Amino acid sequence: VRASDGAAARAAAELQDRLTKPRGALGELEAIGVRLAAMAGECPPPVPEPALVAVFAGDHGVVAEGVTPWPQDVTGQMVANFVAGGAAVNVLARHAHADVLVVDVGVASSVEHLEGVLHRKVLHGTRNLRREPAMTSDEARAALDVGAEVATAAVTRGDARCLVTGEMGIGNTTASAALIAAFTGRSPATVAGRGTGIDDAMLATKIAVISDALDRTPYFDDPVAVLASLGGLEIAALVGYIVAGAAARVPVIVDGVIACAALVVANALCPDAHEYCIAGHRSSEPGATIALEHVGLRPVLDLELRLGEGTGAVLALPIVQSAAKILREMATFDAAGVTEK
Amino acid sequence: VRASDGAAARAAAELQDRLTKPRGALGELEAIGVRLAAMAGECPPPVPEPALVAVFAGDHGVVAEGVTPWPQDVTGQMVANFVAGGAAVNVLARHAHADVLVVDVGVASSVEHLEGVLHRKVLHGTRNLRREPAMTSDEARAALDVGAEVATAAVTRGDARCLVTGEMGIGNTTASAALIAAFTGRSPATVAGRGTGIDDAMLATKIAVISDALDRTPYFDDPVAVLASLGGLEIAALVGYIVAGAAARVPVIVDGVIACAALVVANALCPDAHEYCIAGHRSSEPGATIALEHVGLRPVLDLELRLGEGTGAVLALPIVQSAAKILREMATFDAAGVTEK
Repeated sequence: VRASDGAAARAAAELQDRLTKPRGALGELEAIGVRLAAMAGECPPPVPEPALVAVFAGDHGVVAEGVTPWPQDVTGQMVANFVAGGAAVNVLARHAHADVLVVDVGVASSVEHLEGVLHRKVLHGTRNLRREPAMTSDEARAALDVGAEVATAAVTRGDARCLVTGEMGIGNTTASAALIAAFTGRSPATVAGRGTGIDDAMLATKIAVISDALDRTPYFDDPVAVLASLGGLEIAALVGYIVAGAAARVPVIVDGVIACAALVVANALCPDAHEYCIAGHRSSEPGATIALEHVGLRPVLDLELRLGEGTGAVLALPIVQSAAKILREMATFDAAGVTEK
Repeated sequence: VRASDGAAARAAAELQDRLTKPRGALGELEAIGVRLAAMAGECPPPVPEPALVAVFAGDHGVVAEGVTPWPQDVTGQMVANFVAGGAAVNVLARHAHADVLVVDVGVASSVEHLEGVLHRKVLHGTRNLRREPAMTSDEARAALDVGAEVATAAVTRGDARCLVTGEMGIGNTTASAALIAAFTGRSPATVAGRGTGIDDAMLATKIAVISDALDRTPYFDDPVAVLASLGGLEIAALVGYIVAGAAARVPVIVDGVIACAALVVANALCPDAHEYCIAGHRSSEPGATIALEHVGLRPVLDLELRLGEGTGAVLALPIVQSAAKILREMATFDAAGVTEK
């Protein structure tokens, strides 16, 4: 992963000032356009379409600790819902003309019979991260490779000039909060949130689980070992997806707290990875904001979403695409014969 | 304008809770869906498409006071840019599959030669609102009728199931701030902002101009008289457009501070008008936030935009449309065979 292109960014900033609008009047939309130019190394940047939403699904042994009111079967049931087109991310992706690819990287139940799923199961769910490493390093690397494979294949085939992160996994806000705590140094109580809707007692359990997991995780300089200790298979796949997207210089629109956990791991592996990422929204999970501040990204949307699946990222997609089109399609003062102030 | 439909809103809120997601997990997107059902009186609500962006253009005599660094000719030049498709709102509307209709309701220069403009000029710009009423009440009513005609015709012909506000007029942040001050009771210094980019001296002038205009404006219970005293022709047209959209029970997506000024006037005329309005974004102009708080609307986007033209509203359009599709297309727990918590 190379650093993004400062010359292209400067050219885009200068072009913004020649377009028929007061300087800076398009605010964050201008900033996104400049970043897209830096990512692509081109001004104006290519429009980030078509877009792919890859929904990585995996289960979490930590559900044995009582950190969520949802049964683990829901992960596999939702995989069926995704391929049937009935989940929120499907509805939003259709409206934004993005494709959805569902990837089984670690669902506990058997989903082999489901057509339309990319079957890349590494394990039938992770181990219980409170008690032992969730994955071995080899298993984590296998999941990383799944994500990288999906991103690289989509970009190489021309199916995607924009990657959108998606995921499903009952229990995965616990693993994500643990990873964000580990990589940002913030406390379990600060990063843990109520996820899909848990009560005070369950939240206290979640914080204790994360504390125990951090206590038994060695803090050597090996992000993959920390990822294996705490992370989920779908989170590891997202790390690979983000890194491969950044290596291909394609914008990656990052969703909520799960994707933000993957982003901090990706950035620990490749310190320039975040330069290719756009934070689609600010999840109402506290860990998401902590992770985004850690890597220095400002979210596009703030709609109090806490669903995951890629929903907030795909809602931001038309705005990101519009930012590129502003640089490609708007008239300059000279061309339009408009007087400057 | 009738009140929106509480029964349809309740039905939509109940439907949200049966869809395959944790309750409330789509945050503001769920709230928008509920409001769309209330506006239409139907659950699920129709998808608000096709959408029309009506860009009303008018000039302001108050530019003689030195409240903007832009020459008045820019209004007519930008009208030409709009019909040529080169302005920001054109680029954004194309991406969102919305039509743009440019309406001359009061441009100072002659734009009669421009094809593609709806020619409804009431005056060649308003009078100087610091010194005298900007319009007579008859002129204000004529401009209101232009906006209402555009909205009603588009909805009746089936060209629009969603109305997006747009405008252009050098000097119109001054008129808008004066109207917001008049209808909310806030001080000129609180509502006035830097518009397209003015320095401290010009901002002080702008505040003095607004104070003088308010001092000579009678505060009787006649919103049209206050509108005529302070407002622009394009602002009056937007008031008519908003009221007619609300009367037709069609969602109106409101843009920045100019549209927010029209919204507070519309709400003074018809206290239920805001129930049919969605605030597309939070403009960086302070008056916009004051106006939205006055009518009780929360903006969808917050991207530090301060361009106008309809740009922030049309950026919010795909999100508003997605909110309706969530209610129409998502699977329920029962239908998808997903276990509830």
